[in-house]
Amino acid sequence: MGYQPINLQDKFQKFSDHWSPRVIAELNDYQFKLAKFEGEFVWHSHADTDEAFFVVEGDLRIELRDGQVRLGAGEMFVVPRGVEHRPVAETECKVLMIEPRDVVNTGEAGGDKTAENDVWI
Amino acid sequence: MGYQPINLQDKFQKFSDHWSPRVIAELNDYQFKLAKFEGEFVWHSHADTDEAFFVVEGDLRIELRDGQVRLGAGEMFVVPRGVEHRPVAETECKVLMIEPRDVVNTGEAGGDKTAENDVWI
Repeated sequence: MGYQPINLQDKFQKFSDHWSPRVIAELNDYQFKLAKFEGEFVWHSHADTDEAFFVVEGDLRIELRDGQVRLGAGEMFVVPRGVEHRPVAETECKVLMIEPRDVVNTGEAGGDKTAENDVWI
Repeated sequence: MGYQPINLQDKFQKFSDHWSPRVIAELNDYQFKLAKFEGEFVWHSHADTDEAFFVVEGDLRIELRDGQVRLGAGEMFVVPRGVEHRPVAETECKVLMIEPRDVVNTGEAGGDKTAENDVWI
């Protein structure tokens, strides 16, 4: 049987909106999600889980209440559970996120950037 | 505070042996591990967990009992729990693996390619 790899750039070509994660794979009860970031997200946290960000293309700044981290392509960072953070991308940035299946993008904060969860491409 | 990103290529420069995963980050009870593959690994499976492979550089073939998948840079594949698989790399391939903290590289198979677990770089 010819199994198919999951090609991240192919998947990124399937959507253009920002801050709206698309699921590309599952690992037990975790999901791999792609998103395009541009501009400033909302401050939020996830009380029950860490959240991993891996930058595929572009530059991402993750603001934390006591500092920040800057990520370029090929760099990752794990935001610990409960830690408030705000992703900011001056220009469009392509990001792979890894987190449990039921995590909502805006965490406890809600608001108009809250995306539908568990949307596959 | 200036938080530091985790740069995958920087981490890959810190070791040169093959089939010996190094932990670079944790996400809850999961770990991100880097490894360099070259040659043929052993057939094995992990009864209790799926296992994700993301190719950072090079080409990887994952053989399965009923087929195979070929991965290039920027491509990933999740081997489902219990499914026998054998990674093969004709030339050196740099791989990011994501799996629970206690997973041993050779799964149920053991043998001389079994690496020490939970080794951080």
